[in-house]
Amino acid sequence: MRPSSSRSDGAGPPPPPLLAGLTAGPDVDALLDDTALLRAMLDVESALAGALADCGLAPRSVADALEEACERPDRLDLSGLVEGTASAGNPVVPLVSAIGTAVPPDARTWVHYGATSQDVLDTALMLLVSRCHATLDAAFRTAGDAAASLALTHRDTLAVARTLGQQASPTTFGLVAAGWLSQLDTARARWALVAGDLPVQLGGAVGTRAAYGTQGEAVAAALASRLELTTRSPWHTDRQPILDVAAALGAAVVACGKVATDVLLLAQTELGEVAEASGGGSSAMPHKQNPVSAVLVSAAARRGPALVGSLFGSAVHEQQRATGAWHAEWEPLRDLLRLALGAAQRTADLLEGLQVFPDRMREHLRGGGAVVMAESVATRLLPSLGRAQAQYLVAQAARSRDFEAALRADPYVLDALGDSGISDALDPRQWLGTSGELVDAAVARHQRLGAP
Amino acid sequence: MRPSSSRSDGAGPPPPPLLAGLTAGPDVDALLDDTALLRAMLDVESALAGALADCGLAPRSVADALEEACERPDRLDLSGLVEGTASAGNPVVPLVSAIGTAVPPDARTWVHYGATSQDVLDTALMLLVSRCHATLDAAFRTAGDAAASLALTHRDTLAVARTLGQQASPTTFGLVAAGWLSQLDTARARWALVAGDLPVQLGGAVGTRAAYGTQGEAVAAALASRLELTTRSPWHTDRQPILDVAAALGAAVVACGKVATDVLLLAQTELGEVAEASGGGSSAMPHKQNPVSAVLVSAAARRGPALVGSLFGSAVHEQQRATGAWHAEWEPLRDLLRLALGAAQRTADLLEGLQVFPDRMREHLRGGGAVVMAESVATRLLPSLGRAQAQYLVAQAARSRDFEAALRADPYVLDALGDSGISDALDPRQWLGTSGELVDAAVARHQRLGAP
Amino acid sequence: MRPSSSRSDGAGPPPPPLLAGLTAGPDVDALLDDTALLRAMLDVESALAGALADCGLAPRSVADALEEACERPDRLDLSGLVEGTASAGNPVVPLVSAIGTAVPPDARTWVHYGATSQDVLDTALMLLVSRCHATLDAAFRTAGDAAASLALTHRDTLAVARTLGQQASPTTFGLVAAGWLSQLDTARARWALVAGDLPVQLGGAVGTRAAYGTQGEAVAAALASRLELTTRSPWHTDRQPILDVAAALGAAVVACGKVATDVLLLAQTELGEVAEASGGGSSAMPHKQNPVSAVLVSAAARRGPALVGSLFGSAVHEQQRATGAWHAEWEPLRDLLRLALGAAQRTADLLEGLQVFPDRMREHLRGGGAVVMAESVATRLLPSLGRAQAQYLVAQAARSRDFEAALRADPYVLDALGDSGISDALDPRQWLGTSGELVDAAVARHQRLGAP
Amino acid sequence: MRPSSSRSDGAGPPPPPLLAGLTAGPDVDALLDDTALLRAMLDVESALAGALADCGLAPRSVADALEEACERPDRLDLSGLVEGTASAGNPVVPLVSAIGTAVPPDARTWVHYGATSQDVLDTALMLLVSRCHATLDAAFRTAGDAAASLALTHRDTLAVARTLGQQASPTTFGLVAAGWLSQLDTARARWALVAGDLPVQLGGAVGTRAAYGTQGEAVAAALASRLELTTRSPWHTDRQPILDVAAALGAAVVACGKVATDVLLLAQTELGEVAEASGGGSSAMPHKQNPVSAVLVSAAARRGPALVGSLFGSAVHEQQRATGAWHAEWEPLRDLLRLALGAAQRTADLLEGLQVFPDRMREHLRGGGAVVMAESVATRLLPSLGRAQAQYLVAQAARSRDFEAALRADPYVLDALGDSGISDALDPRQWLGTSGELVDAAVARHQRLGAP
Repeated sequence: MRPSSSRSDGAGPPPPPLLAGLTAGPDVDALLDDTALLRAMLDVESALAGALADCGLAPRSVADALEEACERPDRLDLSGLVEGTASAGNPVVPLVSAIGTAVPPDARTWVHYGATSQDVLDTALMLLVSRCHATLDAAFRTAGDAAASLALTHRDTLAVARTLGQQASPTTFGLVAAGWLSQLDTARARWALVAGDLPVQLGGAVGTRAAYGTQGEAVAAALASRLELTTRSPWHTDRQPILDVAAALGAAVVACGKVATDVLLLAQTELGEVAEASGGGSSAMPHKQNPVSAVLVSAAARRGPALVGSLFGSAVHEQQRATGAWHAEWEPLRDLLRLALGAAQRTADLLEGLQVFPDRMREHLRGGGAVVMAESVATRLLPSLGRAQAQYLVAQAARSRDFEAALRADPYVLDALGDSGISDALDPRQWLGTSGELVDAAVARHQRLGAP
Repeated sequence: MRPSSSRSDGAGPPPPPLLAGLTAGPDVDALLDDTALLRAMLDVESALAGALADCGLAPRSVADALEEACERPDRLDLSGLVEGTASAGNPVVPLVSAIGTAVPPDARTWVHYGATSQDVLDTALMLLVSRCHATLDAAFRTAGDAAASLALTHRDTLAVARTLGQQASPTTFGLVAAGWLSQLDTARARWALVAGDLPVQLGGAVGTRAAYGTQGEAVAAALASRLELTTRSPWHTDRQPILDVAAALGAAVVACGKVATDVLLLAQTELGEVAEASGGGSSAMPHKQNPVSAVLVSAAARRGPALVGSLFGSAVHEQQRATGAWHAEWEPLRDLLRLALGAAQRTADLLEGLQVFPDRMREHLRGGGAVVMAESVATRLLPSLGRAQAQYLVAQAARSRDFEAALRADPYVLDALGDSGISDALDPRQWLGTSGELVDAAVARHQRLGAP
Repeated sequence: MRPSSSRSDGAGPPPPPLLAGLTAGPDVDALLDDTALLRAMLDVESALAGALADCGLAPRSVADALEEACERPDRLDLSGLVEGTASAGNPVVPLVSAIGTAVPPDARTWVHYGATSQDVLDTALMLLVSRCHATLDAAFRTAGDAAASLALTHRDTLAVARTLGQQASPTTFGLVAAGWLSQLDTARARWALVAGDLPVQLGGAVGTRAAYGTQGEAVAAALASRLELTTRSPWHTDRQPILDVAAALGAAVVACGKVATDVLLLAQTELGEVAEASGGGSSAMPHKQNPVSAVLVSAAARRGPALVGSLFGSAVHEQQRATGAWHAEWEPLRDLLRLALGAAQRTADLLEGLQVFPDRMREHLRGGGAVVMAESVATRLLPSLGRAQAQYLVAQAARSRDFEAALRADPYVLDALGDSGISDALDPRQWLGTSGELVDAAVARHQRLGAP
Repeated sequence: MRPSSSRSDGAGPPPPPLLAGLTAGPDVDALLDDTALLRAMLDVESALAGALADCGLAPRSVADALEEACERPDRLDLSGLVEGTASAGNPVVPLVSAIGTAVPPDARTWVHYGATSQDVLDTALMLLVSRCHATLDAAFRTAGDAAASLALTHRDTLAVARTLGQQASPTTFGLVAAGWLSQLDTARARWALVAGDLPVQLGGAVGTRAAYGTQGEAVAAALASRLELTTRSPWHTDRQPILDVAAALGAAVVACGKVATDVLLLAQTELGEVAEASGGGSSAMPHKQNPVSAVLVSAAARRGPALVGSLFGSAVHEQQRATGAWHAEWEPLRDLLRLALGAAQRTADLLEGLQVFPDRMREHLRGGGAVVMAESVATRLLPSLGRAQAQYLVAQAARSRDFEAALRADPYVLDALGDSGISDALDPRQWLGTSGELVDAAVARHQRLGAP
């Protein structure tokens, strides 16, 4: 497999992956680059030959010869591949030629037999998706494990919950982490569903499977079995499988983005409630410890939705095969896979190394005389004072510098709750609802999801 | 329920729904407009009161009073609703005030008890989605029935399949319709899955369900039961339920767009293979019969993906409740519902009224000496001539004015296939693969999906 | 102008604009709703009649009759408008019928003469855009004035600049406000360019202007002159004018979003450097003062880009008039206008009422022994210590609890800078570069942009 | 410049650009890949050193040493570049280290002096954009020349105009080509405007230009002059320059997409009015000549808008430098450049090689007794019959098999127009309006735009 490429003709080594490396690392790239795609297309052609033999359409010996040719790409003459791709508009046409040249004459008839370019490329892309599964699942598993660990460790670590950017009421950092866990696990489960139903494409030129006579379904089933994919009717112009992948990857990126965004906010200098294991340096400011992982995941979360929209926007494929909508899927699909895998791995790293500072959390909870307990106090006042007066008195007290002092100085409040009642109302541990149970439920679900 | 609105203050009737009406009709609008939303929010507040009583937190009599108030919106003073919405940033805050004023003093404590605005609005939006289910399902059912009928009627109607805009090989119009059917049914099934798992939101101010003590899960379950929705952990900042709805609606719009795009192409003057039941007139050209329904569905299919992208792009909700991302969901979600429902209804109409012209299809199949049979001929030549020569000879013949004549004049072809072999190779009925079975499978699946 | 509408048939008043009101207020709606569109379409038909007379194609008396009919919509029978719109796929076809019925027989010939539906609707939409200009420009002007005032008032108000969420180096709040000003003014100027070149559409049925003989250009020019729009070749399928509007509105929304996002971050409880004039209440927490305006502008900034993408995605219009891409422009264009106008007005309000707390800003600047002065110190150390050692020593000191104390205790630093040199290096006023000049430049540019 | 890359470690040559090559060729890639980016970043660092010397801040000899180091990247130790990029979150931090190591100790102080990573990367990206200008402009120029040539050659070639997919009225193929030309030229002119105002970024760590004392503006101006870019206030968080590039590239892709879409439709087998110079083969059907270039341009036009939306969606940059929104710009910006350049080059090829078949155009014009002349006939009948009757009679005739025969048989029509009047009304040459003048105007404008 030594195809010529304009870049490799003399001009020196390939450029370092400067920016692409910030999306995902080389292990992800190796799953998705053109070498991986070429491998996948050869696997499809090989499996098709095998499937034809399985169904008695082609001689077994011919299938063997074809499989061997596809497994030894170093013996294929791929010199015309790039040029042939450009002139045919897809890489299957020249690849089929190259395979044809490499096999004995009697096998040539059966190369790519009954298939169309889209059969091979769609199936190869499904193979790429399938081959990304383990990596994405493992990254989500690792991220989930780390989030579960944070959730359990900090099940009772008091913290301020913030809504619309403002301090709101008490929560635990454990519940915050459980929220991350829950979203990561949902994304993982959804991805697993999609990854478990990736179909082969086999319709022939126009979706009738004409060349296989009455055997179309059987050949498709054999192909699917060999590639460990599923079957469905030809989906040349029904792109639901692509949309499923897109939506699941989009949700995966969003789940990672949630973690990153929260970390960025909690790690702000003035909050300082968490920090990344090791910050990134600045080219100008020696004191800076930038939350680089969170920043990069956040960047991925901004790019992903547009790619989801792009794939939905190319999903109407006209007539029996589309004029452009199909070609418009390839790069966004790979880009979205790259984004999601990279984001998941970085999120796993981020969570595994996250530093948590419970003291800062506690400090914020006590600020301004524990004004974040306002909802707690108002709720306890409801029975005796009614909603309107309760809210009014608490809002008044909240406007003073010291909420607790103001409450204790208010005769109505004192009368309604008494000294110890005020203390109870200001105790964040008594205003956590079922946060502990919610943490436990999220962790239990994570454990049920199990190993990859 | 007579809230004041600036528009209704003297300025005359509301404007006619000129452009909005092209997206969806008044029945769809009535499911989604602000009156429907108000109704849904009141239903949530009412059900919450009931749920509190179910769990023994509030007296049943209080719950009854609250439910009654919510069911008689005409008695609510909603005059401050619009202004209150603008100043609070959401409609729940002023609505809660209005309900509070309408109930006996002892019930006021329990209005909206333990809930936050997002609990009510998220649940109300899920109710709107749920209430759209029957209409969307029925439209897809009707469209599917019509497509199934076309598929069966035209199971053996020969037609030209077209790929990349070019005539390719024979197919049947039945298989074309079965492709539509299959895509519509997949979209319908996916929607049903999503519509069957629409969760209530109940987290309280910060997701801890603090005000319900140990009863949080029970209140949520009772609420869900009363509203016929499902439960899940508080999802204030985990927007997977919104993403599920978005992806399913996006796929629904795409499925309709596929039908419309094919109809637009088949209805081109030069093809004339189908026509809408009644075309739209032109303001300039008296002879025009524009395929208006297909055009409008196609327009919806162009707008939908951006809305899907918009919802994915607003799905990262920071901290315990978001600063803007939540507010950014409301209108795109309703717009996408409107688009999908309108497109589905129009697609049903389009398919029910579709005129099909088998003669034109046959004509195209025979054009140029049946050159669309080229793949068939080449495949039959493979065994005797090998791939390279077979393709070469057929491509040569395809370049002449009369493919059949050229084939019969070619000594190699004649030698390989014989006269009757050439006739067989040119017979489209012998090059349909399993198109009939694919039609039957699609129709059988449709029947299994059953009534709404 | 009393068209029937299904909603007004008995079912009570229109729903209050609950959610739509959060996007923009009734004054904006009145510029963009279907009543405004109807008015604009009538203005186009009226101006076309006038233009025909201007060019000597139609008798002046006929033009007068037509103009009169269009100016008295209350006399038009618009009862079939909604239904006619749905069946024709656009509102122009039934509107032309209604006008035809209302004018004397001899004038009917000249109604809509030589025009096609798209001529009228495109031009009417350009009129709507044009009629939004004053409101958008005024809102940006007001927002800019407020930002300029903040910039000048706080030209020397020291503040911490934050990059990647971390405290970085000193700046002034004036420069922060000048950054807002600059972005608002750029958006305003860009919008003014676009609003000053909104073209009429006049191509006739297929863009040849066939019905006007040799007078096509003259009629178009007269139409443009009457409507105060510009001319260009028929642009039925060249949507650059729509893309220009989309990009300018997108940039406008982004400029507002920048202000809102900064305000949300600066208004966080822990920062407290700014606050909105009056916060929005919470339905659960009596102490909350939510930054509602900033939240709603931020929501707009999240929705806008998808609408820009939607309009670019519908900009390829095939053949001589498009099958769906045109129809897909109408609602996104109005939605984007609504978003931009609403966001601009809210941003103006937000900036006019913004409360600024310089004490909090100063406090943050001094935190941790003024560690935000690290870049300043390191830069001053460069000449004597070289880059590597300077960065190393400063980074070391930055890790201690008190940056200043650590610096003063470091013999190398002391040796290099001396006591007073350290004081200078820690003085934020000596590390502001040209921030004052940048403020002045932004304000001066704002003044040059002048009144609307 | 021999950075290590995981891919180059033993694993063989880089993969052939299978799919990427379908977006753009190697010449475009060389303008935009990471090698080009590295070159651009070095050019910025070099020019910054020069600018410092120009302003008297740094010694000229030091600047010379720095410039030399940047111009000999082969002497830089870039082995840590990829890893350093990943840990810092951008490639500038490790690049600055590498330069520092390569220069004499006394020059190290001045490496990257006063700048921040974003200054260098933003400016480098503007350089990349600037370096794409000539290629994009040339491609548009070539495409425009070809379209102009088609427009003039076919200024009088009669053709059927089609609206909403239906035959409408006569036009000329010259006017169709002039429409392409006009859109291409508008896109080219818009791009030139943007490419002529690409600003350097120079703000220092937080946009105050602190390290340059009072010289900030002067250094920025010198930098801009050396790089042939423009100046503006620091735009770290004001992304209008990126939005301008995005909108112009989006419009460029759309203009190409218009040409491609029309070619795809006109090249349909049943229309056959144009064909690409050489079609792409099919892997299954020997007779197929697929319009590959048009398909690939159409694919680009489907992907471009989502990238435009992505860039607008990342344009709100918070505080003094953003946490993710900045990083989210880099890849979409390069992708959009690649798409636009590739699409423009392919469109140029497509237009230069386009085969036009006037006979087929004429045939379609005459079909059905010239029913596409219906508007012409109806307009001529207006004066004598009035609008209603004219439209009715023409619509009746249009429904017959032979429009001309039906007209001549209609006594009212015959009476109104006479035999020769009917002939005139059916003569397409008399119903072309000012199509010739519109062609001439488009070509004249093209000539004014001149050479690149």
